Formats: sequence, structure tokens, C-alpha cells
Amino acid sequence: MTTPLSPVVSIIMGSASDLSVMEKAAAFLDEMEIPFEMQALSAHRTPEAVELFAKGAKGRGIKVIIAAAGMSAHLAGVVAAMTTLPVLGVPIDASSLSGVDALLSIVQMPPGIPVGTLGINASLNAAILSAQILATSDKDLEKKIEAYKENLKRKIVKANSELSDVRYKYKTN
Amino acid sequence: MTTPLSPVVSIIMGSASDLSVMEKAAAFLDEMEIPFEMQALSAHRTPEAVELFAKGAKGRGIKVIIAAAGMSAHLAGVVAAMTTLPVLGVPIDASSLSGVDALLSIVQMPPGIPVGTLGINASLNAAILSAQILATSDKDLEKKIEAYKENLKRKIVKANSELSDVRYKYKTN
Amino acid sequence: MTTPLSPVVSIIMGSASDLSVMEKAAAFLDEMEIPFEMQALSAHRTPEAVELFAKGAKGRGIKVIIAAAGMSAHLAGVVAAMTTLPVLGVPIDASSLSGVDALLSIVQMPPGIPVGTLGINASLNAAILSAQILATSDKDLEKKIEAYKENLKRKIVKANSELSDVRYKYKTN
Amino acid sequence: MTTPLSPVVSIIMGSASDLSVMEKAAAFLDEMEIPFEMQALSAHRTPEAVELFAKGAKGRGIKVIIAAAGMSAHLAGVVAAMTTLPVLGVPIDASSLSGVDALLSIVQMPPGIPVGTLGINASLNAAILSAQILATSDKDLEKKIEAYKENLKRKIVKANSELSDVRYKYKTN
Amino acid sequence: MTTPLSPVVSIIMGSASDLSVMEKAAAFLDEMEIPFEMQALSAHRTPEAVELFAKGAKGRGIKVIIAAAGMSAHLAGVVAAMTTLPVLGVPIDASSLSGVDALLSIVQMPPGIPVGTLGINASLNAAILSAQILATSDKDLEKKIEAYKENLKRKIVKANSELSDVRYKYKTN
Amino acid sequence: MTTPLSPVVSIIMGSASDLSVMEKAAAFLDEMEIPFEMQALSAHRTPEAVELFAKGAKGRGIKVIIAAAGMSAHLAGVVAAMTTLPVLGVPIDASSLSGVDALLSIVQMPPGIPVGTLGINASLNAAILSAQILATSDKDLEKKIEAYKENLKRKIVKANSELSDVRYKYKTN
Amino acid sequence: MTTPLSPVVSIIMGSASDLSVMEKAAAFLDEMEIPFEMQALSAHRTPEAVELFAKGAKGRGIKVIIAAAGMSAHLAGVVAAMTTLPVLGVPIDASSLSGVDALLSIVQMPPGIPVGTLGINASLNAAILSAQILATSDKDLEKKIEAYKENLKRKIVKANSELSDVRYKYKTN
Amino acid sequence: MTTPLSPVVSIIMGSASDLSVMEKAAAFLDEMEIPFEMQALSAHRTPEAVELFAKGAKGRGIKVIIAAAGMSAHLAGVVAAMTTLPVLGVPIDASSLSGVDALLSIVQMPPGIPVGTLGINASLNAAILSAQILATSDKDLEKKIEAYKENLKRKIVKANSELSDVRYKYKTN
Repeated sequence: MTTPLSPVVSIIMGSASDLSVMEKAAAFLDEMEIPFEMQALSAHRTPEAVELFAKGAKGRGIKVIIAAAGMSAHLAGVVAAMTTLPVLGVPIDASSLSGVDALLSIVQMPPGIPVGTLGINASLNAAILSAQILATSDKDLEKKIEAYKENLKRKIVKANSELSDVRYKYKTN
Repeated sequence: MTTPLSPVVSIIMGSASDLSVMEKAAAFLDEMEIPFEMQALSAHRTPEAVELFAKGAKGRGIKVIIAAAGMSAHLAGVVAAMTTLPVLGVPIDASSLSGVDALLSIVQMPPGIPVGTLGINASLNAAILSAQILATSDKDLEKKIEAYKENLKRKIVKANSELSDVRYKYKTN
Repeated sequence: MTTPLSPVVSIIMGSASDLSVMEKAAAFLDEMEIPFEMQALSAHRTPEAVELFAKGAKGRGIKVIIAAAGMSAHLAGVVAAMTTLPVLGVPIDASSLSGVDALLSIVQMPPGIPVGTLGINASLNAAILSAQILATSDKDLEKKIEAYKENLKRKIVKANSELSDVRYKYKTN
Repeated sequence: MTTPLSPVVSIIMGSASDLSVMEKAAAFLDEMEIPFEMQALSAHRTPEAVELFAKGAKGRGIKVIIAAAGMSAHLAGVVAAMTTLPVLGVPIDASSLSGVDALLSIVQMPPGIPVGTLGINASLNAAILSAQILATSDKDLEKKIEAYKENLKRKIVKANSELSDVRYKYKTN
Repeated sequence: MTTPLSPVVSIIMGSASDLSVMEKAAAFLDEMEIPFEMQALSAHRTPEAVELFAKGAKGRGIKVIIAAAGMSAHLAGVVAAMTTLPVLGVPIDASSLSGVDALLSIVQMPPGIPVGTLGINASLNAAILSAQILATSDKDLEKKIEAYKENLKRKIVKANSELSDVRYKYKTN
Repeated sequence: MTTPLSPVVSIIMGSASDLSVMEKAAAFLDEMEIPFEMQALSAHRTPEAVELFAKGAKGRGIKVIIAAAGMSAHLAGVVAAMTTLPVLGVPIDASSLSGVDALLSIVQMPPGIPVGTLGINASLNAAILSAQILATSDKDLEKKIEAYKENLKRKIVKANSELSDVRYKYKTN
Repeated sequence: MTTPLSPVVSIIMGSASDLSVMEKAAAFLDEMEIPFEMQALSAHRTPEAVELFAKGAKGRGIKVIIAAAGMSAHLAGVVAAMTTLPVLGVPIDASSLSGVDALLSIVQMPPGIPVGTLGINASLNAAILSAQILATSDKDLEKKIEAYKENLKRKIVKANSELSDVRYKYKTN
Repeated sequence: MTTPLSPVVSIIMGSASDLSVMEKAAAFLDEMEIPFEMQALSAHRTPEAVELFAKGAKGRGIKVIIAAAGMSAHLAGVVAAMTTLPVLGVPIDASSLSGVDALLSIVQMPPGIPVGTLGINASLNAAILSAQILATSDKDLEKKIEAYKENLKRKIVKANSELSDVRYKYKTN
């Protein structure tokens, strides 16, 4: 994989300050060897850039868009309105309302313009879902995701065995 | 006032089904003799029309925009992002969440792009506030609004006197 | 298209009573000519059937799973735990809590097991998103979805023009 | 009590990180001399292990299951679906939503599959309730629980007497 | 079964108006042939009767108490404070708050006094859980509950097959 | 009691439409033979009348004020700010938010200006509490309230006995 | 005031840990020279002591009861059920739910048993309201409260003048 | 601009402690060279001062009022009731309820008395909206606001370019 790769997943976020949350998405895509791009785009402060992005994404080879935003969180919906690519939304906990504002702003889209919404701050899950979407037509990626999930199980099994070491008199395993 | 008037308030709503809620705004503006226009524009389903509207409003002489929407309710925020006209938002109770989704989507705007938000379904108040805004540079309108508020008081006073007729043995006024 | 088609989208719902909500998903897939299946499967009352379903779906050619449930709404998460297919969740408003219980149960998945969540009762959007996912590797379907979205816009434009017929004295468009 | 004991209460938790909350449950069971086991089991990441656990618990002599989880918190419900043992659920405060997500995911079970739900992070109460359930057929345990509750009262009485020492001029007790 | 039976489950409710909700609990216990009693007892309006009830229940052979109440819903907690029997709480949707008030009042008990809480209006689940508790020391009852759960599955399977009859052109099962 | 009585309790409400909720308060005061007055006064629409009322109430012999309002519900707080009489607030369920807006507006008063808040629409309880306040210096009234509460208990006892008539095969009381 | 005084206000709290919140109530009563008592009493852990307290309070000369509790917060309601003295409730923020659980548990009392509820942690306001209640039959106390409120105003006026010193170029007062 | 200027925007806040939140509003108005005043005024603790302020504002040349308050947050509504100037409300996060109490208290105004509400703690947006209102009759100010918004865009574009520097192996831009 030495030739330059065109990105297939695009991670956009309403504010550069969301990067600390979105890093897990980037790390996962990197681990899966899925080419991606990442940028800050504000539905409210740079609407023209958002439009340019949304309308051009498909032509540039993007297959899935991950849009993260806090508070009113219109980014995912605005992008979804201008493309037929699947858009995944990540509500960011960025106000005193703990992300409930962003969650409702993203998930309660009107009929016709879906956004597949993940949990509050759940950037890793957005990246995994984007990979699962790509894997519907990519057997190699499917295998990588299966391996990733197997690995998750192993970690839990290991955590469990460590839990068994906690000592109580009447604890029996 | 027989010559055609250019609208100064623009009422937009995310769906034609919001008309039953927004009629009170129209009736108030009519009563105040404020020229207005009214149309359905969906941030998600007709984004280009929204952009055209938002960018052209000031040039056409619009002074205040009232934007009503339910659910994810991005309309007010999207318009506010593309104009420096004051935008007033009316959250519509249009889902099982009683308008809380629309309220949070509209009111929790990020720094830089304000939407002056009214109560859930509070279309009349949006129209009154738009008139109050216009009245900051229109003494005649200011007088009409003052008369309107006086009239409101009279109605309460009348309702009160009717209340006093409800009979209880130990009721003393 | 007279030969029998293998389903590529699977709609499952926690209770047969959810059918009235999920019918819109079925109608959309039908309109898009996407072969689909539909069944009731309860994470709590028929767990073995759910397991059988989840583990067998990919092998039968399913590409996307839409899982709808109300209240505790574990169906989508339980299925997502047993497959690497993309799972879309539809929270059903089926209790006194207006679907908030189902929304949080579906969307707040732990890291590693994403469910792309749609709005409360938003079955149509789940179907559209499933089509958008399929369209990432199907140009014909992509065109159909684009046509569908164009049609949505036309409806809004028509509704707008009807709105313009509402008469107020000072209404100017 | 030198012979090895078979566990009668099983504490499971969705993540090893829940241990800090669940320790109070373990300590109480230890104090009551109720044999118990404790393990991490994720409904979503180790579904097969959960199934094995749920279906085997009764046969191994388990009488009550305590299941703790945060966020979507499907663990208690998934286990309850596969056993007729009483299942007690402990919602864990593990997201920005303060445990409300877990509470609703656990308590709003559909008809037929109950989970007896305790307060958010209320691991001690889950352990006490499990003891009260066992005590319905164990007179010795019943006495221990009564003694435990008496002790609780004494602590309050003592706290009260210390409160009386707070000095205010017009405070009279 | 002609000899008089002593009740082992006691259903209490804060108001006689809760009967319409609690009838499902009674019907289930009847079906399981579990002797039960049922009465209205208000924590706030008949506190002495509640105390008499709570302190006497164990002596009369009661094994499990189901307490239903709406609004402030103190009944379950007040009873739990005066007995070591397991107390199950059913929040009733009896105010404009949809049962959220009762749910929080019942489930958020302080450390030391657990109430096993079921979903809002979930009287059937309370009865099933009471049966599961009794079944921890009653093999016959355990079998009846297993049969009941099997029957639930059959109903879902039947509902599923009926669902398959819904006709769409591209529906494939 | 043929001589005209000066009112000691004043019931005010934000809108005449709240009368249907507040009638229970009036009926209770009537039953207790407590002289009262009742009027509509809007904190927002008739602020001067509210001020006149609040500042004059004590001088006219009023001992307790009951203030009911919906939505923003400032009435109780505004009155409390202008008198040292005890003010009791009744949040009215008058919007899509089920009275939560009014409850928080009334109960969350800043330090220094208390409003004793009752439940949503709980006009009867407001009247009872006003009577209990008056009874702190009126032994006759105290006896009437005690009789009233005794009567409440009798009603519950009667409802309970009627409940006992519900027939189930295994129901034992 | 050298002779021992019998308390007229009783402050009770569900846990000694609530003292840090309730201290403001004590300090205010002290400042007003109102004799009071203060103790920890748990509705759930010391129900008999609560009953003894509630039934004996009036006989000991108590005029108003302030009951503070967190979480399920049954204390105020349980006491109100056993006395005709006015009971004021203070919801304590003592769980992950920020006091919402306690607020709803205290304020949503059933018809017949009122609790005058103050804001979350609003112990000072509870004390002020108790003084206002006592002042309905105590002119001296009324004067002290009026003086206290005047003092509050002075503090705000002073804070305002300090605010005016904040310097901005275009700030004009 | 060396002659003394009469303020056209008035910032009031319920407590001097809100200053830390409201400073951003002052700084923005300063940057826009809009003369303003700023003071603490409590609807509950200094009602007469509030009335004096509200009734005199228009006469002193004020065009827009920004009112910030926490908790019950009646300030904006009380002022709006006594003037026909546009009133903008800023809910302050000042209690355990994260500003939800203030948001609902401010936004849910009854028909007739609008408050244009901004997000929780959104003082900057209130100031921007006040400037946009003034700009409806002030072309110079309109230009300044446009320049301000352009500047905001530039900051986002810069943040984006910095984001592009984050390095991942498969990140492509």
C-alpha cells in the first residue's frame, strides 16, 4: 500500500476543539487501513465550505461521512441534506446539557434525510460503523473487522480473569 | 395604504403542516399593518432554496426573519448562518418529544450565530418580538404595540371580574 | 425482475405491534426495488431466534439490518453484538416515556458495538439510510435515491406555493 | 464453614471498570456469609459467554443474579431473557447522562421478562435485596439481615446525637 | 385445591384507582396458582395501616410484597423500611409527568433499604418476578414459569409468521 | 356566620383558564369555612395590578397567598418578592412540557425569596397547606383539618374493602 | 431572652451528611431568634423514630417542620402524613441525578397531604418561609423579616454599584 | 467618537456573580463600538428597581435589553412585561439543574410578552443579536457585524488547516 490513497471516509467536526473526542475514530480507521480525511467545518460559521464539501464528497470518492458536533449540532443534518452518501452523526458533550442538546439535534431528523446517530462522544463507534458499511462490499475489510471484534472479546475475557483475583472470604470463583 | 408593500418580516417554516401554528404570527402582523411574507422552506429538503432565501432576504428589504421548525429544527440556525438579519426561532411540537428536541436544536446555537428563541409553538410571541424590533426605529409601530399590550391588560381585567362571579360561600370579593 | 430475489435488507422488530410504524420502511424499500425481509424477533422473548438470525444474516446475503424496538429496546444492540453487518436502530414510542427509553437504550451503545440510530419512530429514515449504504457500491440505486430526494424537494416547493395562497391583507408574496 | 461453598448469588458486570461500584455488593454478601461469584460479562462484546452463563446459572446452584451495566445496559435484560432466576439490575453512571440511560435501559423491560432494578450505582441495595430473596427460604439469613438493619438504625441514632452537638444560640436540643 | 390458602404474595397499591393497572399482576398469580392478597394502602393517607401491614406481613406467611404507587410514590419505600421481605415496586403513570416522578421516587432508595423496581405500569413483570423469587425454593413453580415463558415465545413465533404474510413486491420471505 | 368576612387566603392565578384547576382549592377553603378571595392576575400582562395586590395583601388581612401559573410561571415569585406573607405556588400544566416548565420556574427561587411549591396542578394541596399554616395559630381550624384527614383515611379504607371484592381464584382476602 | 426556649421550628434531615446544606437554615433561624431543633431522622432507616417525631411534634410546641432529604426523599411526605403541622420540604442534591429525584419525590405528593417544597438544596429559603409562616401571627417576627429583606436589597444595590466600576470603552454608566 | 454616548443596549443580570458569564457580551459591544450599560438587578430582591429600570429604559434611549438570570430566572420576563423594547434573555447555569431551570423560565413566556432567548450562558450571542437588531436601522453597524462574521470564518479555516497537520498513516489530507 505504497501508492497514495484517496480517502473513502471523511471525518468532519463542528469545531477544532472536538478533535480530542474524534481522535479515536481516526485511530481506528488507521488501524483498519482505511484511507480517511479529517477537517473542521462549521454548519453555522462556514456554511459555504460545508456546502462545497457535501456536494463534492461523492465525486472525490468518499463513501461515508462522519459528522461530529455539539450543542445545536446541525452539521450532520446539513451535510445529509446535500448528499446521498450515508452520514453518521456523533453528538459531542459540549455544553452544560451533557450532550442531550446535540443528541436530539442530530437524531430527530425529518423524514427523508436520515443521519445514523451514535452515542454521545462515541467517535470510535462511528468509525467502526463506517468500516462495517464499507465492508458490505469489501471482504478483506470484513475480515479485519471480525478480527477486531474477536480482539475486543479477548480483552473482556482477560479483564474477567483479573476480576476473579479480587479476594473475599465467601467469594467462590 | 393602497400601494403594494414590500415585506419587512419573513415567516418561514420547515413544513407546510406548521401553518396551523404559525397563523397567529401572520394574524398579528396583519393587525399591526406590518407587510410580511410567508413560505415553507426546509433546511434539509430544499437547502438551495434556503440559501437563496437567506442570502437574498436583506437585499429584498426584509428586516426580521421568523423561522419555525420541529424535531431537529435546523432551519433557524442555517438561515442565521447566512445573514446578519436578526433571526427569531419558533420550536414546533412535532414529535413524541413535545418540542423539546426543536427547542434545544434552536436555542443552543454556537457562539457567533445567535437565534432569538421563543417558547414551543409560540408563534404569536415571535411576531410580537419582530414588531418590537422594527419599532426600535419606528415610532408609529411602537404606539401600535403599546396599544396592543394595553388591550391585553384589559382582557385580563375583564377575565378577572368574571372570575369574581364564581360563587363560593366564603369567597369574599 | 421476475426471478426470485434474495433479500439484502432485513427489517426486524421487537413486537408485531411495531408493524404499523415499520410499514413506511417496507414501502420505501419496495419503491426502490430493494429486496427485503421483515419479521418480529424479540431480544427478550425469543433470544435463540435472534441469535440464529444475527449469526446467519450475512451468510444469507443480508447487507444491512434495521432493528426496531420500544421500551428497553435491546434488539438492535443484541444483534449488533453478533454480526459485523451495519445495524440501524429505530426507537419505537411504546411506553409512557414517549420513546426516550428506547432512544437511549439503542443509541448509547458501548465502545466496539455501534448501532446507527434514527429518530423515534423514524422507520422511513432507517430504510433510506439502508439504501444509501447499499448505494455506496451500487450506482443504479444511487440514482434512484437521488431521484427520490429530488421528488421530496418538488413536494416542498409545491407546498410552499400552496402556502402562498393563504390570504392576509399585508401579506406580500 | 471450612468446606468449599457453591455460589448462590452471581454478580456480573458489563465492564471490569464497574468493579469499584460493585465492591459494596461483594462486601455485603461476604458480611452475610453468602457464597457468591463475580465476573465481567458484556452483553455486546461477549454474547456467547453471557448466554453460557445465563443458561448454566440455575444448574450450578445460583439463586439470584445481580447484573450491573452502564450506558445501553442490556446485560440484565439479556440474562433475564435466558433464565427464570430472579435478575436484579444495577444501572451504572458511566456516561455524560449520569446513569439515566442505563436506568431506562434496565427498568423498562417488556412484559414477560422482569428485571428488579435498583437505583443508579446502588450495588449495596442489590446485594441486600438478593439476601432478602434468599431469606424467604432461609431463617438464619433472615436473622442476619434483621441484625444488619438494626445496626443501620444505630448508626443513624448516633449521627443524630452528634448533630445535636452543633451549636446555635437559639437551637434548643 | 379446595382448602383455604394462606397468601404468599401481597399486592398493595396507593390508590384503588391503580387497580386497572394492577389487574395483570393478579391475573398472572392466579394463572400460576400462587395464593395472593390485594389491597389499597396509602403511605400518606393511612400510614398506620401501612405500618401494621408491613410489620405483620412476614408473620402471616407473606414472602414477597408488590407495592404500586404513582406520583411521590412512597409506598414501596415505606414498606421496605419496616420489613426484611423483598419488596418490588411498580411506578404508576398517574400525573402529567408520565410516571417519571413515581419511577425516581421508588428506584432511588438510599443505601440499606432496597426496592426492586419494575418499569412504569409494569404490574405483570412485578408478578412474574415475585413468582421467580418464590421459585428459588419451589421446583414446581419454577416449571410453571418455564412453561409460561415458552408460551410467550410461541406467541412471538406466531406473530412473526403472520407478519410474513404482509405483502410487498420486493419482500422476499 | 352571617356577618361579612374579610378574606385571609388569597388565590391568584395567571389566567382565568386556570380556574378549572384551582376550583378544588376554593371548594376546600369553603368546606373549612376559611374566608378567601380569588382573582386572575398576570405577572406579565398586568404587572401593576400584581404589584398593587402584593403590596396591599397584608394590610387587607390576607395571611397566605396561593399563586398558580403555567409555563414561565413568574406570578408566585413576583408576588413573593413584594410581600413577607407566605406564598404557595401551584405549577399549572399549560404547555406541551406537562408543567415541568412551571414547576422549575416556581420552585427554583433564588436565596431570600421562598415560594412553597406544591405538585403540578395540586391546587387542593395548596389550599390544605394554607389551612395548616393558619391552624398554627387557630385551634378550631386545626381540629377541622384533623377531621378532614380522618375522613380521607375512611375513604381509603372503604376503597380497600371494595378492592377485596375483586374475585380471583387464588386471591385470599 | 435568658429563659430556656421551647423550639417552634424543627429541622430534620434524612442523613447527617445533609448538615452542610442545612446549616444555612439554622443560621437564619438563629439570626431571627426563632428557637429551633435539628436532627437526623431517616424515613427508611429509623421509621419508628420518624413516627414518634411526627406525632409528637405538635404537642411539643413545634409550629413548622422543615424536612430535607435526597434521592427517594420520602421523609417530608412521611412526616406530613402523620401531622397537620405545615411541612416544608428541601430536596437535597445527593445522587447523580442532581436532586431531580428528590425534587419529584417531595413535590408530587398525592391530594390530601401537602408538602411545601423549596428549590434543590434551598435550605435558607425553607427557613425564611418557616419564619414567614410564624409571622402570620407574630408582628415582631414580621418586622424582623422585613428588615432582613431590606438588607438583601441593600446588598444587591451595593453589588450593582461595584458592577458599574467594570471598565469598557463604550460602557456609559 | 469622543463625545459621551448615551447607552443603547442595557445588560442587566440577576446577580453580580453572573458577571463572569456576561463579560463576553460587554466585550463584543465594546468591539462593535455600541454604547451600553451594565447592572445587577434582581426581579425578586429589588423589584422596585427593576420596575424603575424597565419603565425608564426606552425614555433614556435604550433600544435593546439583555437580561441574564439563573434558576427561576424571572428577570427577563418581568422586564418584558413593563416595556415594549425587545428583551433578550440569557439563561445562566447557576444551580444543580445545569441551566435547564433558567432556560424554561425564560423561554416559555405566555402569549403577549415575548423574550428572545439565547442558549444557556450564551452571553456573546445575546450581544450579537442585540447588534443585529440595531443594525436593522444602522448600515454602518451592519457592516461591522458582517466583518465580524467574516473574521469568525477565517478562524475556522485556520483551525481546519491546523487539524490537517494531525498525522495518521492512512489519513490522506
